[in-house]
Amino acid sequence: MSAPFELHEQLATDTYWVSELELCRCLLSRDARFPWLILVPRIQALTEFHQVPQDKQQALLSDIHRASVALEEIVQPDKLNVAALGNQVSQLHIHVIARRHSDVAWPGPVWGVGEADSYTDKAVETRLNDLRRALAD
Amino acid sequence: MSAPFELHEQLATDTYWVSELELCRCLLSRDARFPWLILVPRIQALTEFHQVPQDKQQALLSDIHRASVALEEIVQPDKLNVAALGNQVSQLHIHVIARRHSDVAWPGPVWGVGEADSYTDKAVETRLNDLRRALAD
Repeated sequence: MSAPFELHEQLATDTYWVSELELCRCLLSRDARFPWLILVPRIQALTEFHQVPQDKQQALLSDIHRASVALEEIVQPDKLNVAALGNQVSQLHIHVIARRHSDVAWPGPVWGVGEADSYTDKAVETRLNDLRRALAD
Repeated sequence: MSAPFELHEQLATDTYWVSELELCRCLLSRDARFPWLILVPRIQALTEFHQVPQDKQQALLSDIHRASVALEEIVQPDKLNVAALGNQVSQLHIHVIARRHSDVAWPGPVWGVGEADSYTDKAVETRLNDLRRALAD
């Protein structure tokens, strides 16, 4: 019997819950500077992207596609960044980040750049509602 | 008729050719500090990860898997980083980077960190031979 899925504490701390997709839990980063989704496959003890079992890979790609299209619809980014790094939190998670030529990290990656901004209660409520509607389409 | 595949000039400049995989051209970054493969789907005018056509997605994942396993076999990394950023070069390319706890960028991402080191002729010949053998397994 496989262990039940548990979200890594750090990922829970750094994000808002958005929704459950086909394979992944979809989270929103609390850093308001970048519209930034984090997808966590609901499979315990995965650490590397290429370890996703073959029978789950289509669902993983479908979830990445859905997250990407939702961000495109909501914020019309100049570019998307899709990445599985996991240097700090080993539980496999895939970043899907909407980038703008005007954002503070452009054209570099977003990780480790400056200090995070917080969403206001109202801003995060709007963002979460928009995401849930777009992800359900 | 679709346009023939052409590798972006910057990617050609920054890498050594390794091999042709099922969907992707496999390149090795010239930066010797990190064992770093770059996979470029041989489809013209793709810029985003989620734009890979559905009938090519399995091949893309298979190529990422193959590149990851080859790096694991050759350099036994502590972690792999898999990322499609494309902020500087728009042609879709997927980084597969072998990371060590002792590398100069750890635990941050590798992009934009310090100055690249070059491979010696002998070191790159060995690396390319090892990669081609591992990728052919």
